[in-house]
Amino acid sequence: MIRRITLSATLTLGLAATAIAQTKPDQVIEYRRAAMTMVGWNFGPMSAMVKGKIPFDVKEFAKHAERIATTAPQVLEGFAKGSDKGAETDAKADIWTHFDDFQSKLTDLVNESKATSEVARGGDEAKVKEQFKKLGGTCKACHDKYKQD
Amino acid sequence: MIRRITLSATLTLGLAATAIAQTKPDQVIEYRRAAMTMVGWNFGPMSAMVKGKIPFDVKEFAKHAERIATTAPQVLEGFAKGSDKGAETDAKADIWTHFDDFQSKLTDLVNESKATSEVARGGDEAKVKEQFKKLGGTCKACHDKYKQD
Repeated sequence: MIRRITLSATLTLGLAATAIAQTKPDQVIEYRRAAMTMVGWNFGPMSAMVKGKIPFDVKEFAKHAERIATTAPQVLEGFAKGSDKGAETDAKADIWTHFDDFQSKLTDLVNESKATSEVARGGDEAKVKEQFKKLGGTCKACHDKYKQD
Repeated sequence: MIRRITLSATLTLGLAATAIAQTKPDQVIEYRRAAMTMVGWNFGPMSAMVKGKIPFDVKEFAKHAERIATTAPQVLEGFAKGSDKGAETDAKADIWTHFDDFQSKLTDLVNESKATSEVARGGDEAKVKEQFKKLGGTCKACHDKYKQD
């Protein structure tokens, strides 16, 4: 399972300064899909609670919110330059031609997931549900523009 | 990307009390593979630093270590009962016939990843490299027994 570091790879990580070893596009794509899967895995029960499909449990909600808050800052490096193709992906090429806007939308996810985690720790159900809408809004804003149907 | 909650699914989550909605085996498998991908993504640069393949940067090392420490506690629910099949997986069926041992090995990962994150924050390169061996040991112990080649 341990990912092999490919020092001879050609991908350029066009991100903030980082010591991450250069990786192949298919590895970056696998990584971003993994990050999104983990976000979605945790978003699901939160959404179900807010919609009343399962009982609202603020402790469980907070657990999932914290996980998204720790995963969200890891998403950006899954969109390194050069990873627009190389494996199956739902990412539109517009991401890399509008990278500042894309990065701004990811920053919204980071900020709102952090806020959701904090509000959930507060334990006020009404506030949690209100904040959750903002979190969902950051997902939608980015998917509407940059994710293929 | 948002995972659909399948309330009518048949999978039994044989884990500690949790409000996670029941999910289909293929979703659980996708989730555990995602968690492992994220662990591996972060383990890679740490390993490369320890082996001298890339420059040792304790701040970067600590970042990756913290990520593994926050992801490791999320791995167990990716091995819910009933998820031995349903999609491509490297997980051996022995996991579910020796679940206490498997869970113990995952707990070792949780503990050693947490220790690695703490040691890395301390900044002592020699100690970090020593602790990293223990972390790698927890990966190997579980993979040797429960992961298909």
